[in-house]
Amino acid sequence: MKIAIYGYGNLGRGVELAARQNPDMELTGVFTRRDPKTVKTLTGVPVFAAAEAEKHAGEIDVLIICGGSAKDLPEMTPKLARLFNVIDSFDTHARIPEHFDAVDQAAKAAGHAALISAGWDPGLFSLARLYMNSVLPEGKDYTFWGRGVSQGHSDAIRRIPGVRDARQYTVPVPEALRSVRAGEDPDLTTRQKHTRECYVVAEEGADRAEIERQIKEMPNYFADYDTTVTFITEEELQKNHRELPHGGQVIRSGKTGADGAHRHVMEFSLKLDSNPEFTASALIACARAIGRMNAHGVAGCLTMFDIPPALLSPMDPAELRKKLL
Amino acid sequence: MKIAIYGYGNLGRGVELAARQNPDMELTGVFTRRDPKTVKTLTGVPVFAAAEAEKHAGEIDVLIICGGSAKDLPEMTPKLARLFNVIDSFDTHARIPEHFDAVDQAAKAAGHAALISAGWDPGLFSLARLYMNSVLPEGKDYTFWGRGVSQGHSDAIRRIPGVRDARQYTVPVPEALRSVRAGEDPDLTTRQKHTRECYVVAEEGADRAEIERQIKEMPNYFADYDTTVTFITEEELQKNHRELPHGGQVIRSGKTGADGAHRHVMEFSLKLDSNPEFTASALIACARAIGRMNAHGVAGCLTMFDIPPALLSPMDPAELRKKLL
Repeated sequence: MKIAIYGYGNLGRGVELAARQNPDMELTGVFTRRDPKTVKTLTGVPVFAAAEAEKHAGEIDVLIICGGSAKDLPEMTPKLARLFNVIDSFDTHARIPEHFDAVDQAAKAAGHAALISAGWDPGLFSLARLYMNSVLPEGKDYTFWGRGVSQGHSDAIRRIPGVRDARQYTVPVPEALRSVRAGEDPDLTTRQKHTRECYVVAEEGADRAEIERQIKEMPNYFADYDTTVTFITEEELQKNHRELPHGGQVIRSGKTGADGAHRHVMEFSLKLDSNPEFTASALIACARAIGRMNAHGVAGCLTMFDIPPALLSPMDPAELRKKLL
Repeated sequence: MKIAIYGYGNLGRGVELAARQNPDMELTGVFTRRDPKTVKTLTGVPVFAAAEAEKHAGEIDVLIICGGSAKDLPEMTPKLARLFNVIDSFDTHARIPEHFDAVDQAAKAAGHAALISAGWDPGLFSLARLYMNSVLPEGKDYTFWGRGVSQGHSDAIRRIPGVRDARQYTVPVPEALRSVRAGEDPDLTTRQKHTRECYVVAEEGADRAEIERQIKEMPNYFADYDTTVTFITEEELQKNHRELPHGGQVIRSGKTGADGAHRHVMEFSLKLDSNPEFTASALIACARAIGRMNAHGVAGCLTMFDIPPALLSPMDPAELRKKLL
């Protein structure tokens, strides 16, 4: 199966590396909005101009779109779904319905299959919620994120005057996790679920107390959380906070039986050294499924909820039943 | 959707209770091989003779077969797949390929959909292995079971002369779990993964030392494990060991990146107060999917690997995307 990458940032590079772990996938190229001559890929795969993607229609089974959810994907995915089978990792939950509709219309008109919101959340975490809710209709869902770097929160800190660089870690509160896992079904406020750790490199002479105040009082991002701010040097940031780890837990606690006497706790958890590389690995498996589904006549917009799990694997069905069932 | 239960033991009773948590499912009856007049259901649902199942073909969308894997299901499921869409929880891993083929032939000939090996292992645990292997092709799988009652091992103890009753708990070794979760990729022997705790009610005057020896030396069941034997009274067994809890963990540890520098640990875990009631709850969700798939023209034998997850849920696709994606 021939795949290509559209957008060459952290996620695109992750897809490039993940493709090498999947011998049934051939990575044919990377599309960039920069000047292709200025982009050097990690594995030597060719680079093309994004504006010339149309010329490659027909050469690529599935195009993996590695753009941002805020501005890139709402425009890119519908446009590219007219030319290719496509996948994106659109993660603005509130705007999924409208994105779905736009992509569905474009993909159906062209006879292509398009998968939106693939990855781990949305993605594998969504699947966990769906399986858990289907099996235990009476229960309560919890999602925890972290310990991991939130790029959105890191960016928010960087926009404060006097901040040169920053990393923000989202951290689940251990007592909340313990209570949920014990099946205690707690009602948890935002503050009780996660804390936020900020590591900040300040400009020379900046007012650190003022930076800390602005972070801790920032609405939506930090005001509702117990937030700690630690000032570090540029060297410390490069040494100790260069990676993009993440992860989290989806937990459902439910009851069954004559009088709800029996409690069950289901949990799906991820502990990831590299958020973009793991997301990229999920996208590759999804590309396999989407290519296969389109080859079997499926067109339109899909989510991971619509993919028969067997299609994600390079193994054939008999081998899957033998080895993994 | 109209469902019925074939076989009324712990699992069948679990399905009966789980059906009440799913308002879109109507439980129309229970088939038993006993004299129907002697069987009283928990919720008053009617009881029919198993031998007369054929008379009810056409009244039932999906039949949930609650028989044993050793003797019942290899015969029952193919036979009943000629009359109904069916589901079973066949769990003899080594014999799944032949069971699949027999059921597939019968179901295809009749135009029915049949789902085998549904539940949690095989079932949800198999799905976890499939998703994890598809996303992280380079890695290592681990499955732990427990702490929970193994009915097969409890039965094996009961067959020893001088044993009146017994419960066997399978327990993961904490150090093994810790190491796997830490991404240390240990090579673990059978003994290093699980211990076995046996609670035994001996007949009066029985040779307890001999019973303990026979348990601990029993090949396949106990000889390869660190096994503890505790003799208890009938009253203690009824008071402290009446329930059938179970659970376990599927864990995959894998690597990505330029030189495999980034490690990821994925885990799916279950902690169940009642193994049969939870399994039954999974079967109900699967019945929903199988009924829908057959209504859309799908015939033949399937496993949970083949079910698009959205079909397990009573929610419609747009609602699913809004609430769970």
